[in-house]
Amino acid sequence: MGINQQYSSALLERAVDEFSKLPGVGRKTAMRLVLHMLRLDVGKIDAFTDAVSTLCHEVHYCEVCHNISDDDVCQICANPHRDASLICVVENVQDVMAIEQTQQYHGLYHVLGGVISPMDGVGPSQLEIDSLVERVDKGGVDEVIFALSSTMEGDATNFYIFRKLSKYPDLKLTVLARGMSINDELQYTDEVTLGRSLVNRVPFTGK
Amino acid sequence: MGINQQYSSALLERAVDEFSKLPGVGRKTAMRLVLHMLRLDVGKIDAFTDAVSTLCHEVHYCEVCHNISDDDVCQICANPHRDASLICVVENVQDVMAIEQTQQYHGLYHVLGGVISPMDGVGPSQLEIDSLVERVDKGGVDEVIFALSSTMEGDATNFYIFRKLSKYPDLKLTVLARGMSINDELQYTDEVTLGRSLVNRVPFTGK
Repeated sequence: MGINQQYSSALLERAVDEFSKLPGVGRKTAMRLVLHMLRLDVGKIDAFTDAVSTLCHEVHYCEVCHNISDDDVCQICANPHRDASLICVVENVQDVMAIEQTQQYHGLYHVLGGVISPMDGVGPSQLEIDSLVERVDKGGVDEVIFALSSTMEGDATNFYIFRKLSKYPDLKLTVLARGMSINDELQYTDEVTLGRSLVNRVPFTGK
Repeated sequence: MGINQQYSSALLERAVDEFSKLPGVGRKTAMRLVLHMLRLDVGKIDAFTDAVSTLCHEVHYCEVCHNISDDDVCQICANPHRDASLICVVENVQDVMAIEQTQQYHGLYHVLGGVISPMDGVGPSQLEIDSLVERVDKGGVDEVIFALSSTMEGDATNFYIFRKLSKYPDLKLTVLARGMSINDELQYTDEVTLGRSLVNRVPFTGK
């Protein structure tokens, strides 16, 4: 070891190294986080490391919707209060969280694990599309909501699944509304979004 | 548990909760970090939690300079290649790191643990000032460098320590140079800094 750029503690250096491997965390931020943890009670540190360790060792994926789960079936799928006749198709776990945070959806999910993207070598067989068709085939599903990103890949995936599911005549297939965001100013909205807002205009109820 | 804002996994929720307790980490960032960790090998997770846990359980503070250490004496104080006749007085551990990164300093440190701040109820007795005087009193120290922040509290602390150490006639007391930062434009430099740069001007060696 030289005498330049020395850490006074090898343990400190190792902890900073580990934190700085996290995405978006540089060495200065890592140092700040580690020094913060050093000021905490040992009990709080144990709670932190235990939470991370337990999650990563015991993580399951729900065998119904493929979301992250503690057991074979996730808490959302296992919740009897949720409407099992509604399935919302999303790309990943973060999308489930985003929809849950709206507090507007009480159905179940289906996590595809990505979108069809030939550029990235992702074909339909790598996604949880067949298992979605099986869920619908079992019956009891009234509506499938497509909630993928509004990108070319998302649209292609929507279309692929749409064709697979169009053989069920009683199944309602819907897609998230596209349009101006809340608080958007009309003059600054891009033309495609504004056009879609016009075409998909809804009755004004005065609310 | 309601049906709104539901996590599919209690383990996931707990890990996100723990990460979002870190300073500057909100729930979205916490989620991103946790999902990143979920994609790692279990071995890497164990390395991460072990590094954090070991540091926090086994941390010492150097009995000489009060920096974070693995043993009774830190790696910097124990390094025979470093110049023990130079002591740089800093406020905290981050300051040591900042100076180490300049690669311009080969002496030892003394970490005060803060600065004198009557507003925050921090008096000289709560800082490692007496132990600094003891280090000087033992002999072998030629120079003490004041490297505190250039704030009112930092200046007050400098002055307090200066008075304590002025009884050693052979001891050289120095303070970090204040002046324009590298790459600063002169017209945008504040007047106090620019004035200090002028007063403390140094011989131009053509380098």
